[in-house]
Amino acid sequence: MGEQHAVVGIDIGGTNTVFGFVDRDGNILGEDSLSTTQYVEPEVFVAALYEKIMVTKAKRCPEVEILGFGIGAPMGNINKGTIEYPADLPWKGIIPLAALFNRYTSLPVVVTNDANAAAVGEMIYGGAKGMKNFVVITLGTGLGSGFVVDGKLVYGHDGFAGEIGHTVIRPGDSNRDCGCGRKGCLETYVSASGIKRTMLKILADKLDPSELRKVSFDELDSRKIYDAAKKGDKLALRAFERTGAMLGFKLADVVAHTNPEAIFLFGGLALAKELIFEPAREHMEKNLLSIYQGKVKLLPSELSAQNAAVLGASSLIWSNREM
Amino acid sequence: MGEQHAVVGIDIGGTNTVFGFVDRDGNILGEDSLSTTQYVEPEVFVAALYEKIMVTKAKRCPEVEILGFGIGAPMGNINKGTIEYPADLPWKGIIPLAALFNRYTSLPVVVTNDANAAAVGEMIYGGAKGMKNFVVITLGTGLGSGFVVDGKLVYGHDGFAGEIGHTVIRPGDSNRDCGCGRKGCLETYVSASGIKRTMLKILADKLDPSELRKVSFDELDSRKIYDAAKKGDKLALRAFERTGAMLGFKLADVVAHTNPEAIFLFGGLALAKELIFEPAREHMEKNLLSIYQGKVKLLPSELSAQNAAVLGASSLIWSNREM
Repeated sequence: MGEQHAVVGIDIGGTNTVFGFVDRDGNILGEDSLSTTQYVEPEVFVAALYEKIMVTKAKRCPEVEILGFGIGAPMGNINKGTIEYPADLPWKGIIPLAALFNRYTSLPVVVTNDANAAAVGEMIYGGAKGMKNFVVITLGTGLGSGFVVDGKLVYGHDGFAGEIGHTVIRPGDSNRDCGCGRKGCLETYVSASGIKRTMLKILADKLDPSELRKVSFDELDSRKIYDAAKKGDKLALRAFERTGAMLGFKLADVVAHTNPEAIFLFGGLALAKELIFEPAREHMEKNLLSIYQGKVKLLPSELSAQNAAVLGASSLIWSNREM
Repeated sequence: MGEQHAVVGIDIGGTNTVFGFVDRDGNILGEDSLSTTQYVEPEVFVAALYEKIMVTKAKRCPEVEILGFGIGAPMGNINKGTIEYPADLPWKGIIPLAALFNRYTSLPVVVTNDANAAAVGEMIYGGAKGMKNFVVITLGTGLGSGFVVDGKLVYGHDGFAGEIGHTVIRPGDSNRDCGCGRKGCLETYVSASGIKRTMLKILADKLDPSELRKVSFDELDSRKIYDAAKKGDKLALRAFERTGAMLGFKLADVVAHTNPEAIFLFGGLALAKELIFEPAREHMEKNLLSIYQGKVKLLPSELSAQNAAVLGASSLIWSNREM
């Protein structure tokens, strides 16, 4: 047996940053995390993160040779190795993430947004193995998207392809503020925070009883809506139905752009399975041009939720190497 | 000087089919056309077309060696060499166009939709030379789109990528029937026929005088609206403004999918220049996520309107050869 190689996959989230050492087959040889929010300066954050990675490596897999660092982060820009104006992170402006890493290492450092990382992960380790044209939609706090065309991730001219969370769903007809400064973006409806807002709206509009009437906005989350729906709560069911319908409507648009073989849903909301897939599938089909109907698969991600982000991030490096 | 080579570029339109012999540099060595509508059977159409191509070649450029046939047609499918359920052609169902051609020739025959052909034409002969990521929007009777990602045309899994003319612009809020059987598709607003419908709507809603009040629906066309607008007709100006605004709104969505360097407008409506570009640019920018703002060029096609379709179709063959 020769020397063992691994890539460091890093997922920078609004709350925590998780990293792991991933081998060529997608096994995680060791992982750990640190709080993102406690670092006011990105320089200090990267120093602490690099330190923690090295300490963890020494403890969990000292024999492994690291080949590079793959980083998924909101508004990550592959061309420049930067994070630009992230709405959900503690840092402002343009953060030269790869350059900060390169203070400590000369290994390759690749930065892209989390949904792009998830798409490459799905292609290398998940349900998109062998597929050439597909889309991954991540349903977390926001809605991210990653497009694969002809076997390659679409980055676009400025490195920012795949932000369909910020396409507007009801032009001139939505009061829902988006973190990006506009109104009515898809992610204000279709995401963990979006379904929560929709739930509140339904509780306001309807008179039916619901166990969620006892829950405050701050206490409410998509998990509680899911639990209520599973128990047959009519209004919680309606919240899923509406959310799925809006997603399905927009997926028909996605198909008309790049005509994928499949669309994978990933992240918290996707775990609600048929509660979200059924209305999404129905409304996607209903809105598809006839040449596309019945052809596009809507599937759950096959990456396990626990380590998908780290796998996806690591795959940014693996996908650049001969597999 | 060695033997001269050319590709036959063919543009199948709802009314006429135009073809030309195009050399490597985009020079048209000879061209002609025949009526599409007079052929009830696609077999007879192809027989007549092939015959006319050969006769024209013998007359105009007998010394040239033909390398292949590039065909742009509505609902053309690159994977199968077919036209599938075209709304605007006299034939129904799936027409095996390449196979019909192959009754007469063993040379390569490539079929794709007219907007895809225009996109490849723009890349090889037009304003997109050297660009890796761009979109071409054709504004004819309908609205077509062709996406280029990383230097290659996006065909999608089923060969039908780029049908944004059939994304819905105002979900649940449009009475405008589309030829595809749905309501409110982008092309029912943004196309030569779309602006005509918008003009009628404005004439119905407003009381202002307009020279177009004397023109029947059947007599009206985008050229007459353009002429009126150039003379300062307030309602005609408003029709361009609305059409451009809707286009701009949807272009912001396009950018959020594939983040192109530029978007080219091509075809009749694009010739209205700033009447359509100005509102389109304004509303695109207004609807763009901040990371894209001020970065995406909205440009007129640099292919001359006269022979662009033939050039585009021929480029399907040239782009597969070493240039």
